[in-house]
Amino acid sequence: MTALSILDHAAVLVFALTGALVASRAQLDIVGFAFLACLTAVGGGTVRDLLLDRHPIFWLSAPTYLLLASVAAVVVFFTAHLLESRYRVLLWLDSVALGVAVAAGVAAATAVGQPAAIVVLMGVITGCLGGLMRDVVANEVPLVLKQGELYVSAAFGGALAAVLAAPFLPGTLWQLALCIGVTWALRAGSIAFGWRLPVYRARPPRNR
Amino acid sequence: MTALSILDHAAVLVFALTGALVASRAQLDIVGFAFLACLTAVGGGTVRDLLLDRHPIFWLSAPTYLLLASVAAVVVFFTAHLLESRYRVLLWLDSVALGVAVAAGVAAATAVGQPAAIVVLMGVITGCLGGLMRDVVANEVPLVLKQGELYVSAAFGGALAAVLAAPFLPGTLWQLALCIGVTWALRAGSIAFGWRLPVYRARPPRNR
Amino acid sequence: MTALSILDHAAVLVFALTGALVASRAQLDIVGFAFLACLTAVGGGTVRDLLLDRHPIFWLSAPTYLLLASVAAVVVFFTAHLLESRYRVLLWLDSVALGVAVAAGVAAATAVGQPAAIVVLMGVITGCLGGLMRDVVANEVPLVLKQGELYVSAAFGGALAAVLAAPFLPGTLWQLALCIGVTWALRAGSIAFGWRLPVYRARPPRNR
Repeated sequence: MTALSILDHAAVLVFALTGALVASRAQLDIVGFAFLACLTAVGGGTVRDLLLDRHPIFWLSAPTYLLLASVAAVVVFFTAHLLESRYRVLLWLDSVALGVAVAAGVAAATAVGQPAAIVVLMGVITGCLGGLMRDVVANEVPLVLKQGELYVSAAFGGALAAVLAAPFLPGTLWQLALCIGVTWALRAGSIAFGWRLPVYRARPPRNR
Repeated sequence: MTALSILDHAAVLVFALTGALVASRAQLDIVGFAFLACLTAVGGGTVRDLLLDRHPIFWLSAPTYLLLASVAAVVVFFTAHLLESRYRVLLWLDSVALGVAVAAGVAAATAVGQPAAIVVLMGVITGCLGGLMRDVVANEVPLVLKQGELYVSAAFGGALAAVLAAPFLPGTLWQLALCIGVTWALRAGSIAFGWRLPVYRARPPRNR
Repeated sequence: MTALSILDHAAVLVFALTGALVASRAQLDIVGFAFLACLTAVGGGTVRDLLLDRHPIFWLSAPTYLLLASVAAVVVFFTAHLLESRYRVLLWLDSVALGVAVAAGVAAATAVGQPAAIVVLMGVITGCLGGLMRDVVANEVPLVLKQGELYVSAAFGGALAAVLAAPFLPGTLWQLALCIGVTWALRAGSIAFGWRLPVYRARPPRNR
């Protein structure tokens, strides 16, 4: 297995867990768990592959991805009630998944020789779109847009760090580890310590 | 016309009717009816074709698909007020569309020689995504996620039955008929008799 | 630069401004502004390119598109509070973006030799999907579906006019100008003077 395929599997596993947790909040049946887990798990990478015209799409080339996502869904179906706070677990799992998926996006775009700006973007897209699809389909407020939290910003920071540091690092694995680390640290800091960027705030109260 | 093209046309027609009915619930104008009808009608099959890299996308290769969907939209625009309960009709039409579209997905994936697991998945994707797009765009609660109803499960059951029974059946048409029958029967049983799988229910009351 | 690339840039710029304005209504941070601006700016054209199998996707082939969208996002982030009514500005900018994007869709489909019906459709898709993605992600009521307003209808009218008038016009630029003009005029008339098509209205009050 290549580094990219390991990253893809890891991102699929963790995102599948978050998809299943959202399914538990929506009280779906076991097939619904698997559906939402698979959608979340492969959503971002699928868009990445479609945009880059990489065929076959990564999860069509190996059955292990969706198998892994489905197993994760079944496990969550039978164990989620043991969790004290499903939302808390969801948040933290999602932060790990974000880091891994951003790195998977960076690795895939680098592998097909895209320029730096596109590499950063594919990192952000792969990281953010799976969770966004999960939240839009399940009718939750997208984590991506939670006011004043670092999410897209964390993905962007991690992907940017990986691209900027690449010439100074001994190899791709270091680059991907840095990407995961920076993305996760930014996101975790935002969850745990409330790190944030200044948000837009209109002078008069917001009228819709 | 091949069996696949007939199935695609049938799924397009029935899904277009459901899209137009949702448009009537949102009180759109006639072009809005056509837009939602076309989106619902070709949404699932479009994603299938993109994922499998089948070009041209099925509705780009023949103008009859979108023509059919638009005609269906116009007919619904002028006759929906005659229906006693539009939601009831919508539910039942959607169940037929689901069966036909799952079979269309199974047929398309089989035609390009995909392995069994992917064939099942393409059935589920083709069946479920058109209706999901319709509901997300129109801001309805997605039928896909209606708590405790068989929907993705019905699509999955039908596609699985078709793949498992294939070696014992005399031909593709029998396989597709079985697929439509099983999917529709499961979905119809869920609507009419409340058939369902056990849903996830947390011990403590759900806190969001 | 070709006419198509100029149109794409113009549509990207104006749609990016609308995405950033919606981000200001959701009080996002600056990266959130850029994300929503980019999504809105390239969403419709991306779907167009995927459907037509045009690779590389237009914004992957030149970094200027996303740079432009990001700059627009930053400008809006620092100046939106100066606007009297952000919603009013959003509506009017969106109407301009719609016209330009419909023309970009028509030009792209014509360039790859699609038949007239597909050209019209690609105009509508390129025009409408970016704004639709923006509104679905940001959880606003999609402008596309605002009851009784011309939106899809305006896009359809403009694209149809361009295709029908093509044989009588001296060149492509005239055709695209006509497309922008008709689309914008229809949409603007709907905003300013309440032009509309009759909407579906059920005899009994709407029961959901």
